[in-house]
Amino acid sequence: MTKANGAQENARQTISFLGPVASYTHAAALQRFGHSDYVLRPVTTIEDIFAAVANSTADRGVVPFENSTNGIVPATLDLFANATGKYGELEIVGEEYVAVNHCIVGLPLTSVPNDAAKPNLSYITTLYSHPQAWGQCTKFLSAHLAKAEHVDTSSTSRAAELVSVGTDPVVAAISSALAAKHYKLDILADSIQNTSNNTTRFLVIRRSPTSSPAKSGSDNDGTGWKTLISFTVPHTTPGALADCLAVFKAHDLNLTGFHTRPFSSQADGGEAAWRYIFFAEFGGRRGESSVDDACRELLGVAESGRWLGSWENGTAKG
Amino acid sequence: MTKANGAQENARQTISFLGPVASYTHAAALQRFGHSDYVLRPVTTIEDIFAAVANSTADRGVVPFENSTNGIVPATLDLFANATGKYGELEIVGEEYVAVNHCIVGLPLTSVPNDAAKPNLSYITTLYSHPQAWGQCTKFLSAHLAKAEHVDTSSTSRAAELVSVGTDPVVAAISSALAAKHYKLDILADSIQNTSNNTTRFLVIRRSPTSSPAKSGSDNDGTGWKTLISFTVPHTTPGALADCLAVFKAHDLNLTGFHTRPFSSQADGGEAAWRYIFFAEFGGRRGESSVDDACRELLGVAESGRWLGSWENGTAKG
Repeated sequence: MTKANGAQENARQTISFLGPVASYTHAAALQRFGHSDYVLRPVTTIEDIFAAVANSTADRGVVPFENSTNGIVPATLDLFANATGKYGELEIVGEEYVAVNHCIVGLPLTSVPNDAAKPNLSYITTLYSHPQAWGQCTKFLSAHLAKAEHVDTSSTSRAAELVSVGTDPVVAAISSALAAKHYKLDILADSIQNTSNNTTRFLVIRRSPTSSPAKSGSDNDGTGWKTLISFTVPHTTPGALADCLAVFKAHDLNLTGFHTRPFSSQADGGEAAWRYIFFAEFGGRRGESSVDDACRELLGVAESGRWLGSWENGTAKG
Repeated sequence: MTKANGAQENARQTISFLGPVASYTHAAALQRFGHSDYVLRPVTTIEDIFAAVANSTADRGVVPFENSTNGIVPATLDLFANATGKYGELEIVGEEYVAVNHCIVGLPLTSVPNDAAKPNLSYITTLYSHPQAWGQCTKFLSAHLAKAEHVDTSSTSRAAELVSVGTDPVVAAISSALAAKHYKLDILADSIQNTSNNTTRFLVIRRSPTSSPAKSGSDNDGTGWKTLISFTVPHTTPGALADCLAVFKAHDLNLTGFHTRPFSSQADGGEAAWRYIFFAEFGGRRGESSVDDACRELLGVAESGRWLGSWENGTAKG
């Protein structure tokens, strides 16, 4: 069981996660907050999660951040970029890794042939799933379901729900075992994704405390912590980005992630549409001198910068 | 009319673009290759374009690369990353900018109320479009079409096609004026996107000539050219990315774009799933000493690197 920081602060906290029920974000929320101290509440969009935490409707939010195959989740980065200034009080306080395990799920098999040890799926004519799943399962789909029509849905759990409300067993979905269980569907094929190490990382966000965060004591060397910051650079200055990254190197902070999104503040004119905001993730936490010094020096060479949070390494927990 | 390099090489060249007909990529292809020297051929996926050019089915390909609001096109970057080694002989030779202008398009208005100078669209119950369009038109949709159901399609032109084959005027699409014209639909509302400067950049690719590219003469100072390279860094070395970017700075090359994608070569094991490949775009062209020196020095500090092309700046052409 993952340690749930702050569980003792209130008797029963509300956790906002990206729904619907049985989504992978739900699995991440259950992994961290899956006991009776917490009320888990699904919302429709990633921005809903940011808004719920910002307006105190929820104590924590769980948002998808990065998938090992498909990369960063642009919508989440854009909310952290916070071009509108609405979510400046939020910070990241944790991460959860959830292995993506796609299954072919369908109505219980009563009327279709299923004699072979490995089911022949050729009777399936229509597959529902989230667009990202098609790309993650190309090998299995071309081998076993090449002729099935693909219908995009807003999530893999929504795909399972759509199959469950139908009556035709030739309609199936690519979805998770959690969604199959929730919607009482059969798992017709398991682990159909191309790579065995397709993992999604989720971040846990909260409102920043009004008091300054406690400095870490000398007994904490920062091992097993991560920090995410965002920054922009003067876009007409050659080498500005190199100068920013040199700051991290000077403090021996190893970048474990680096991402870019187009960015335009409200004051920007037309030409500024092609500017970028950068996100750097590295080992260490705020309160350590190397991290604090790097952040201060970064603001000397960057156009703007913001600390987005420091949290314990999820992989280190096993 | 944009200069079409190589038009004189063959009487009639084939241009592969991301279909369907009347897509924004089609508009980009028409902008560059829209005359009788060229045969324009739509294909289904971005990889189909790379494959057609690699296997000589097409002489050039036009692929979407970056949108000023939504950012980079991940599928295109992954093909340039070329983890499978299939597309190593391709290079970028040009770019085209196309302004995204979303319209509400529907069946000709014979049976629905249209008295007001500005049409009241509240009769529309269903909207087809590509998922990206919803996010690009949030303001207009919440003001005028808040209750319409959204149905995802694989492209905005496919959305227009679906409307055109129907008979119910309450079903409309978010699509381009080009698609409305092609499918004989009415434009019910024009320029409904949130920002007036939503532009997509397309790249033109070809097979690299077997002979070495000609060096630019001393009369060419590289103004108005761009170069894209990809590289990976040793992921356990702090500062490796900073060292790579310092090379560009040392040669006074200003990064105009910088992108990251998850990357795993076929030899990688499980842990390597979270490694990245970086894409750096900067002013200048191969054959200039500053660019050639920077590429050579980059290979001294990067784990691997590849020149992906140098081309004339599309914005400079107006």
